[in-house]
Amino acid sequence: MGAGMARNLLAAGHDVAVYNRSRDKAEPLTKDGARLADSPGDVCRGAEAVLTMLADDAAVEQVVFGERGIASSLAQSAIHISCSTISTALARKLTSEHATRGQGYLSVPVFGRPEAAESKKLLVVAAGNAEWIERCNPLFEAMGRQTFIVGAEPWQANATKVCGNFMIASMLEAFAEAFATLRKAGVAPHSFLEIMNALFASPVYAGYGRLIADGKFEPVGFALRLGLKDVRLALQTAEECSAPMPFASVIHDQLVNAMAHGQAEQDWASLAKVAARNAGL
Amino acid sequence: MGAGMARNLLAAGHDVAVYNRSRDKAEPLTKDGARLADSPGDVCRGAEAVLTMLADDAAVEQVVFGERGIASSLAQSAIHISCSTISTALARKLTSEHATRGQGYLSVPVFGRPEAAESKKLLVVAAGNAEWIERCNPLFEAMGRQTFIVGAEPWQANATKVCGNFMIASMLEAFAEAFATLRKAGVAPHSFLEIMNALFASPVYAGYGRLIADGKFEPVGFALRLGLKDVRLALQTAEECSAPMPFASVIHDQLVNAMAHGQAEQDWASLAKVAARNAGL
Amino acid sequence: MGAGMARNLLAAGHDVAVYNRSRDKAEPLTKDGARLADSPGDVCRGAEAVLTMLADDAAVEQVVFGERGIASSLAQSAIHISCSTISTALARKLTSEHATRGQGYLSVPVFGRPEAAESKKLLVVAAGNAEWIERCNPLFEAMGRQTFIVGAEPWQANATKVCGNFMIASMLEAFAEAFATLRKAGVAPHSFLEIMNALFASPVYAGYGRLIADGKFEPVGFALRLGLKDVRLALQTAEECSAPMPFASVIHDQLVNAMAHGQAEQDWASLAKVAARNAGL
Amino acid sequence: MGAGMARNLLAAGHDVAVYNRSRDKAEPLTKDGARLADSPGDVCRGAEAVLTMLADDAAVEQVVFGERGIASSLAQSAIHISCSTISTALARKLTSEHATRGQGYLSVPVFGRPEAAESKKLLVVAAGNAEWIERCNPLFEAMGRQTFIVGAEPWQANATKVCGNFMIASMLEAFAEAFATLRKAGVAPHSFLEIMNALFASPVYAGYGRLIADGKFEPVGFALRLGLKDVRLALQTAEECSAPMPFASVIHDQLVNAMAHGQAEQDWASLAKVAARNAGL
Repeated sequence: MGAGMARNLLAAGHDVAVYNRSRDKAEPLTKDGARLADSPGDVCRGAEAVLTMLADDAAVEQVVFGERGIASSLAQSAIHISCSTISTALARKLTSEHATRGQGYLSVPVFGRPEAAESKKLLVVAAGNAEWIERCNPLFEAMGRQTFIVGAEPWQANATKVCGNFMIASMLEAFAEAFATLRKAGVAPHSFLEIMNALFASPVYAGYGRLIADGKFEPVGFALRLGLKDVRLALQTAEECSAPMPFASVIHDQLVNAMAHGQAEQDWASLAKVAARNAGL
Repeated sequence: MGAGMARNLLAAGHDVAVYNRSRDKAEPLTKDGARLADSPGDVCRGAEAVLTMLADDAAVEQVVFGERGIASSLAQSAIHISCSTISTALARKLTSEHATRGQGYLSVPVFGRPEAAESKKLLVVAAGNAEWIERCNPLFEAMGRQTFIVGAEPWQANATKVCGNFMIASMLEAFAEAFATLRKAGVAPHSFLEIMNALFASPVYAGYGRLIADGKFEPVGFALRLGLKDVRLALQTAEECSAPMPFASVIHDQLVNAMAHGQAEQDWASLAKVAARNAGL
Repeated sequence: MGAGMARNLLAAGHDVAVYNRSRDKAEPLTKDGARLADSPGDVCRGAEAVLTMLADDAAVEQVVFGERGIASSLAQSAIHISCSTISTALARKLTSEHATRGQGYLSVPVFGRPEAAESKKLLVVAAGNAEWIERCNPLFEAMGRQTFIVGAEPWQANATKVCGNFMIASMLEAFAEAFATLRKAGVAPHSFLEIMNALFASPVYAGYGRLIADGKFEPVGFALRLGLKDVRLALQTAEECSAPMPFASVIHDQLVNAMAHGQAEQDWASLAKVAARNAGL
Repeated sequence: MGAGMARNLLAAGHDVAVYNRSRDKAEPLTKDGARLADSPGDVCRGAEAVLTMLADDAAVEQVVFGERGIASSLAQSAIHISCSTISTALARKLTSEHATRGQGYLSVPVFGRPEAAESKKLLVVAAGNAEWIERCNPLFEAMGRQTFIVGAEPWQANATKVCGNFMIASMLEAFAEAFATLRKAGVAPHSFLEIMNALFASPVYAGYGRLIADGKFEPVGFALRLGLKDVRLALQTAEECSAPMPFASVIHDQLVNAMAHGQAEQDWASLAKVAARNAGL
């Protein structure tokens, strides 16, 4: 994800320094004009803003609060823009920790797979101090096709992001159950998919529906274990807000089932295998 | 629904006789050239095919097997086309009962609200004897924008239809849960909806999402108690096929909750009130 | 079940005629003094009351409304006592159909396995006209260890019975999930069972818990497909009453899963295999 | 809880020092012969073992790793016995942190309400190093009526404890659903409870069943928010073990619903209000 985002920032004329634990993942970006940094802190050198795009809470905590991390290196008044799908709890911690240091913080998660990042088609969801959002807006415009501002507190963007991923996961489970029942009824999955495409007319339905109808869960666009993480975050957010989410609970159960059957590193559309197995298929 | 379908059949040049228990619902169609029949059996007089579009199993049984009903009136070789959302069990009964009488039977449920029926935009799902389907195809083309053939046994179309409605109901419940959590998180439903529209790019999401975000459940496009009937049919079909559908079970529970709170005659998008209430909203 | 009940009625000094579709199941009772009848109607000859104990709604309908059935043979003022676990809908139909014929009707389902029937340890749940219940009380006392009167309308006893079976099924599923998690945590099922026995101190927990911990689902005390029927009846009752039962929905899903894996004729404690499979065990 | 346990240790002849954040909760124990300590570390002075009985992970972390905490004060070879219902993750951290300091660690959660602690009727569940368990056994015997050893790794006792609490919570939800349906069917909760008592013959069913049938959720034996914590821990344990627990998910949803309706500080049997509300009661 990060590579595509960086390339679009460079293309828009920004000065960009890049860092990745695996140096060879960041290095190709130097051809596009990026400076290769040797630590998160080194990225912050002279920066007005630093973006993080990482797998989970632990990775973000490490990069921010670890040795030569962002917290200790970012200039006062500079802004940390966290694009990762992290917990609302961590977003609140980042908000207060950066504030303590006179630094800004925004939660700016994005919707879109790596291809969307490359082709500047991400949906950008921002929350936090309105002035900072405005200041950073050129960056958002360089990376995505549309920016949505959802609140004045950064964690609200994280809540929004996990609820959005929950919407996609719900579509996956619904497809999974309908396909399983219909396969046992002798109705071809592709026939049903064709009808659903006529009905919903959504590229997301068409894309994921096809993966499931084809039973094709590689290459991996988004690993199932990360999908489980996101649904767990949705349930945590819901519990914080005292809002029950029974669909999220069902999806969580099914994803745990998938983990028990060795699907951690398959695309999360392979969630559909659970409903199939449960039907004896 | 029936009125729009009849009008499109007339517009395509077919001879049409119409019957409705409430005579004043059928009468306006005489202006479009329909003959007003005084019983289901009277509709069958001289007919090559008879279409039924009714609320539930009981209504279809009454019209087919009741006095002056279709079963006793339809000519041999003529075909009964059932467009209602009925149980697979009744579809199998109709298949065999009509066969006993030398009559044809097809299950041809449709997707689309009354406006879609009027504007010839229904999605037509047909199952049964291939030759009969071909013979009736001009009727399907007159009524809908696309026809899908899903199997050689009529009940397979009914299974497909209830699974399709289940897909819509799943979207409703997913929206309901996400909106409830986000409202409690201080994120405006319309902001989230805007993002989901950018993400899914589906008119179905846009339409239902707006009803829920607006909290506007009237006028009633599809009554909640009929939605409950359809989800019950999906669960019955799934049980027949030995395929568990946990999402359908959750939706069933939520719809029963809605019934207990007096929502039977509201639009089924009001399912969303359940998740809101459960979150204390 | 029926044999044990008949034997206890005979032992209490009642005149008993018996009928079973499989004559050899009823015949042994002649040694205890029963008259062998050759049809349900023949059982009714001279009877003040007739008891039915059958597998499901269809079997009861056949025996009551079929040729040489109870409805056409039972004397006016005599009482039909239905001990089967049937739907509330059928109970209401039996109530009104018998009333039309001047016959009495009571729903009197029982709790207990065949051994309990033999040893006069059934729990008898009765509902209906209070006077009739009083008149039949000697029969209930002859068959069970305790009688509970739950309402003036027969179907209330059926609602009570399916809710009671739901309580047992809930215990099975709870055990299933706890055992699955703990087995994966390396905790022995029998260790956990020992703690649960100390905690709940219930013979029902001890008995079923042991079946599951042992993984021993034969001989079959109560077939899983009948358990599915009962949970379906509980969900139907709940829907009639507009009361959501999410636990019943989960159990239904798990039992359908079990059906898809060929467990229809195993003891319903084998429900526990589903949670184990879902955990990859 | 802690007071009753301490009193029984004193009664068995052990030397006991006590500490509580609220000094007035610990002080009465001095009459029974306890030494009043002024910090967790002070409790450890000269101790062979130290027991902790606290509300949650955070409280245990504070008492162990905080200033004047157990970790820095406990003698080498002395043993920390954690009786709190904590996460398996924290149990593993305590195991390794104490090991690093040459201290022993056992997870020894208990089943039983405060009255059971006072009357020496706790069920004691122990896991960890077998030799340490043997050494501490006199303490367990002084506090409870039975001790169960479930594994060689401390966290296994925590997994067992949260699964045990899950079993109780499942019984609560099952009762809740059955009572709600039957109330709407016109069957009195106390009638149903009487039958369930005859069926399960369990004091736990009788006790909780009565609280729910009476609708009496005060005084508070165990606060609902702590029940939510325990079910959350069960789901975390299940996820770690890759074992889906759909019942636990339903209970979690219902408890979150209860939180949204202001029931945090009521007895967790008030979970039953959720099913009642959902049925429109």
